[in-house]
Amino acid sequence: MAMPWTAETWPIAAAMIPFPGVLADGQLVQEAAPEIWAEALTQVADAGFSHVDPTDSWLRIADLTPARRAEFLAICADLGLAVPAISTSRRSVIDPEHGAAHLAYCHRVIDTAAELGVGHVSFGFFGPLTPAQIQATWFWTVDGVRNPADPETYRLAVARIRELADHAAQCGVQISLEMYEDTYLGTARDSLRFVQDVDHAAVKLNIDIGNLVRLHRPVEPWAEMIALCAPYAGYWHVKNYYRMEDSTTGQVMTHPAPMLGGTINWRAAIRQALALGFNSPFLVEHYGGDGLSVCAANRDYIRNILSDRTIRHDQDI
Amino acid sequence: MAMPWTAETWPIAAAMIPFPGVLADGQLVQEAAPEIWAEALTQVADAGFSHVDPTDSWLRIADLTPARRAEFLAICADLGLAVPAISTSRRSVIDPEHGAAHLAYCHRVIDTAAELGVGHVSFGFFGPLTPAQIQATWFWTVDGVRNPADPETYRLAVARIRELADHAAQCGVQISLEMYEDTYLGTARDSLRFVQDVDHAAVKLNIDIGNLVRLHRPVEPWAEMIALCAPYAGYWHVKNYYRMEDSTTGQVMTHPAPMLGGTINWRAAIRQALALGFNSPFLVEHYGGDGLSVCAANRDYIRNILSDRTIRHDQDI
Amino acid sequence: MAMPWTAETWPIAAAMIPFPGVLADGQLVQEAAPEIWAEALTQVADAGFSHVDPTDSWLRIADLTPARRAEFLAICADLGLAVPAISTSRRSVIDPEHGAAHLAYCHRVIDTAAELGVGHVSFGFFGPLTPAQIQATWFWTVDGVRNPADPETYRLAVARIRELADHAAQCGVQISLEMYEDTYLGTARDSLRFVQDVDHAAVKLNIDIGNLVRLHRPVEPWAEMIALCAPYAGYWHVKNYYRMEDSTTGQVMTHPAPMLGGTINWRAAIRQALALGFNSPFLVEHYGGDGLSVCAANRDYIRNILSDRTIRHDQDI
Repeated sequence: MAMPWTAETWPIAAAMIPFPGVLADGQLVQEAAPEIWAEALTQVADAGFSHVDPTDSWLRIADLTPARRAEFLAICADLGLAVPAISTSRRSVIDPEHGAAHLAYCHRVIDTAAELGVGHVSFGFFGPLTPAQIQATWFWTVDGVRNPADPETYRLAVARIRELADHAAQCGVQISLEMYEDTYLGTARDSLRFVQDVDHAAVKLNIDIGNLVRLHRPVEPWAEMIALCAPYAGYWHVKNYYRMEDSTTGQVMTHPAPMLGGTINWRAAIRQALALGFNSPFLVEHYGGDGLSVCAANRDYIRNILSDRTIRHDQDI
Repeated sequence: MAMPWTAETWPIAAAMIPFPGVLADGQLVQEAAPEIWAEALTQVADAGFSHVDPTDSWLRIADLTPARRAEFLAICADLGLAVPAISTSRRSVIDPEHGAAHLAYCHRVIDTAAELGVGHVSFGFFGPLTPAQIQATWFWTVDGVRNPADPETYRLAVARIRELADHAAQCGVQISLEMYEDTYLGTARDSLRFVQDVDHAAVKLNIDIGNLVRLHRPVEPWAEMIALCAPYAGYWHVKNYYRMEDSTTGQVMTHPAPMLGGTINWRAAIRQALALGFNSPFLVEHYGGDGLSVCAANRDYIRNILSDRTIRHDQDI
Repeated sequence: MAMPWTAETWPIAAAMIPFPGVLADGQLVQEAAPEIWAEALTQVADAGFSHVDPTDSWLRIADLTPARRAEFLAICADLGLAVPAISTSRRSVIDPEHGAAHLAYCHRVIDTAAELGVGHVSFGFFGPLTPAQIQATWFWTVDGVRNPADPETYRLAVARIRELADHAAQCGVQISLEMYEDTYLGTARDSLRFVQDVDHAAVKLNIDIGNLVRLHRPVEPWAEMIALCAPYAGYWHVKNYYRMEDSTTGQVMTHPAPMLGGTINWRAAIRQALALGFNSPFLVEHYGGDGLSVCAANRDYIRNILSDRTIRHDQDI
């Protein structure tokens, strides 16, 4: 399968997760003046990015007035930042309290993507951070909200994603479902099952295995996760972690890592997906420390991988 | 507030902590031939530095004879190394045994700084490494000497720093007090209290929060420390650590990290200090591994942060 | 002692350990078509290497037919890859079952090296990975095979290495013995004893202290290992680890690290060996994550160390 982009043009978007949604003075970015947005986006552009995903933990562009959304887009255009995708975070359509509202919001995200010519959106079933997670140094070391085990909720999840997929397909938008612990996409095996149960051409997997590799508990080996999920790879959140693990005691300790250097071999993972026809943008992420600068290094690393002479061939991990 | 330097000219000094004060043959660097100094300083220059802090764990330039101090300075000049600051280490003016001698030494450091046109000195209340710390792989994983809790010693500490501050002010030298665990500057809150008790225009904080983030025990979140201390930021020792922490069990494990990649977001920390008028040199540090090469990477990282187009604006973490 | 190469020409070989010996379809690289070799070697060349060590966990070139070995060499030549050394892995000549076969194989490796003008081979006494090690996230966190404590086997080990050394000396090949835990070269002290017991001009130490620093148990401090072994330094496998260690509890957790950044100060280690006349190639290694890309960074790091103006002088850690 021919690749749609070159190593230089492949869309690799900066995540806005290093930028908080609430300013130091308590003001919401959502309600802030465009100058506030411009300052964050200028940092992104100064870090060398040509693409940005307005992750909705920072700003829900689907919920801006048309005038303010136009201001946002003008800033991006001025800075040379294209928007290849819109990611949502903690907007589960099966949230016990806000599920219906999140479903309506996800439809608005698809509409916004269509309106702006954005080809990809990312949805997930992970819930809000718990108070204990918010207090934690690293939130993933404390258990969070779990998707319920009852078949009814599972069926609702499938049905609502299919509903969103129908909408997305009409608009030429692709949905990527984010893998995240303790959700219906909490393991590679569960993710496969879910995407196969949805069974819709507009729905792929966001193989965000960094979410799983960072857990302080046993997880599937990363190479196994990639081997299982790569055939379904869509818009892809990528990040890495140092996963220290003592296989004698079972103890695990993790820390965010740059893509090059962490436990996941992203060269192998990306090559394997490409060999299977992966043709979506990347989103580079990094929690902890200077996320923006690490994301910039991650972007350069991916371009380096993509530029390899052997990239079109079938590849083992 | 206008910045006194550009991203290219801001003084960013190499620490000499990667270089031991005792040579392989048992000789003290303090008593060694200038060729020995030159070899270490040539490595610093070859690593791309234009500034060096002759940290006194390596060499006490204040205790050199005038002739040997001139030799030291000639080597620096020859290598293109300016000296923006002199840091002391483990020379507490309230040391139970050597407090008075250290006080006299600190006065000599100020005199030397004045004589050489060096604008900054760093003092602290941390004591000598204990035998158990010297044996340890990482000395900060073993408890060290603690400053006494009695109010009398605390008052003595305030009084002696004020005495040094009067001297420094007369010479146009700025004192920076180093944050260090189990001293009167052992937390952000204690540091604030101490600097406010001293209450002297010549005294600021050396917000060396790497000293605290590396501890294998609970510490204040780094962002909280920066928010509290940034208004008092003076000559600044900067370094980073991977702080793995399991918030369910409370276990912590740390390792030295480059500034870019470790747990502290130095982009945010430096931007916040700059927004409040920070205008002192930096000292880049790194323990463990090839400290000099990591310090060089840290220097380049800081220059990159300083070159951001948005740097003069008020900034959130 | 004059150095035989410049910083630019010093042979620094890529290890093939990031490439598995068994393909995804179950085929052995040993039996695969040359196109399979070419793809892996092209990645190595694309990563900027001019030297490669065909580590035998990937491909046993000594066991290829002459025609296929010629194909291998033609691919290397075409990619601009020289072969300065051949490393063996888990081919112990005192293996309880396969010792004699491994001895014969090691003779073939020496013959092959001689035939190809390769000056260095690496041998070791470490055994096959156990099933528990193969299952482990990091195999070194689970105990593996131990060399027996009986004097007879030890004497056999010395005798067989001496036999190989006689062969190697006749061919102008140098043997480097790899330090590896729980073998006769399991500590710096044991390694010294072994190499002194062998007492042969063709036998040096492969001071692969990364193998030891990564263990989740107490080990000799790296600087002590280097100080003891540097006088015997031969062909050198180099890699680094983050070694987190709590000296109060004794707990250790490790993760692979780039040479620059990990616990071992490779600047100091290499300088010390050079000062003692080290004049062999390096092999850059890295387990976990994208080993090839980290190896490339390790290569650049070594060249940077070698280019220091002060490199010819005696040097302390």
